[in-house]
Amino acid sequence: MAQSVAGPEIERLIQLLARLPGLGPRSARRAALHLIKKRETLLNPLSEAMRVANERIVVCSSCGNVDTSDPCTICRDHRRDASIIVVVEDVSDLWALERSGAINALYHVLGGVLSPLDGVRPEHLNLDRLVERATQSGVAEVILALSATVDGQTTAHYITDLLNHLPVKVTKLAHGVPVGGELDYLDEGTLSAAIRQRTTF
Amino acid sequence: MAQSVAGPEIERLIQLLARLPGLGPRSARRAALHLIKKRETLLNPLSEAMRVANERIVVCSSCGNVDTSDPCTICRDHRRDASIIVVVEDVSDLWALERSGAINALYHVLGGVLSPLDGVRPEHLNLDRLVERATQSGVAEVILALSATVDGQTTAHYITDLLNHLPVKVTKLAHGVPVGGELDYLDEGTLSAAIRQRTTF
Repeated sequence: MAQSVAGPEIERLIQLLARLPGLGPRSARRAALHLIKKRETLLNPLSEAMRVANERIVVCSSCGNVDTSDPCTICRDHRRDASIIVVVEDVSDLWALERSGAINALYHVLGGVLSPLDGVRPEHLNLDRLVERATQSGVAEVILALSATVDGQTTAHYITDLLNHLPVKVTKLAHGVPVGGELDYLDEGTLSAAIRQRTTF
Repeated sequence: MAQSVAGPEIERLIQLLARLPGLGPRSARRAALHLIKKRETLLNPLSEAMRVANERIVVCSSCGNVDTSDPCTICRDHRRDASIIVVVEDVSDLWALERSGAINALYHVLGGVLSPLDGVRPEHLNLDRLVERATQSGVAEVILALSATVDGQTTAHYITDLLNHLPVKVTKLAHGVPVGGELDYLDEGTLSAAIRQRTTF
């Protein structure tokens, strides 16, 4: 119905916007209308930003990060501790860690986690390059910053096995109470881990 | 922090996406990453759809709808009942009514509602053209399909006054229980209106 009213151009815009994560069919319509109303200040700049992104963004052949240069800004940054490689599932996890400022090291983006159910096998992940990088002299530690899900932990075990012939320390993130988290909302697994890994005050 | 990591191109894309209704800073990052990953199937087509939308979409000089032609498809549709003009606040309301298939008439998009608090005065709305259209011979009814909010109803009263010297019937939407709505979740105003405007079974 909306197609015959708004015309195929608007309908196409709505359909494509609805494929963005976080936007459903209804919010995609609102977004399309918003774009059409803010033509000069939003529609044009966004269309242009997408064109530039498509033209200039590349995947770093070393770590799998996305950037406008290869190797990426992080891999080329000599102020970072190159003896530590932080393994993440996705670029969004890399961004989250960078925002936290928790560590100033290098990263390795796997591009997913092993998932027998979804058919994700080792050859689908950026693993060969990880072994290659971990073999280079100067690398002392690989931190597995993977989700505490079954698939994330399966992947962590798999990588630990892959790297166990190398002289690198393999570590993983601590489990425990999230900062600001209330105890009675936490699951038993997290509480048990927080007790087991308790530290002195 | 993310700027120095992801580069200004990605950061610009995220900032613009975050200005879409329904996307916050976090979901805009996810959307940007999704776009970068789906370059061929989503980033390019969406950028192109925006370019086309900007180039071809115009506002109908008769009713205020957005379309690729002026007058718009609805205004040019001779199968519609041109004796009825449905007044709506926004194009999204027009789309909603068209999806419902509730009426096959013409529309008039105000581009907002009167709002003393937000500084929206009569001269900011598409009102002159409404009076002009309602004056044309053949127009018998103007349906005020405005929100049941204070501003919506103020606007409805204002329009009724504007049109009361014309030989057109001015009507408004019925109040009542939404279809599928549960009584005990409804406010008193809606329940009172539903009782007052009860119909025979």
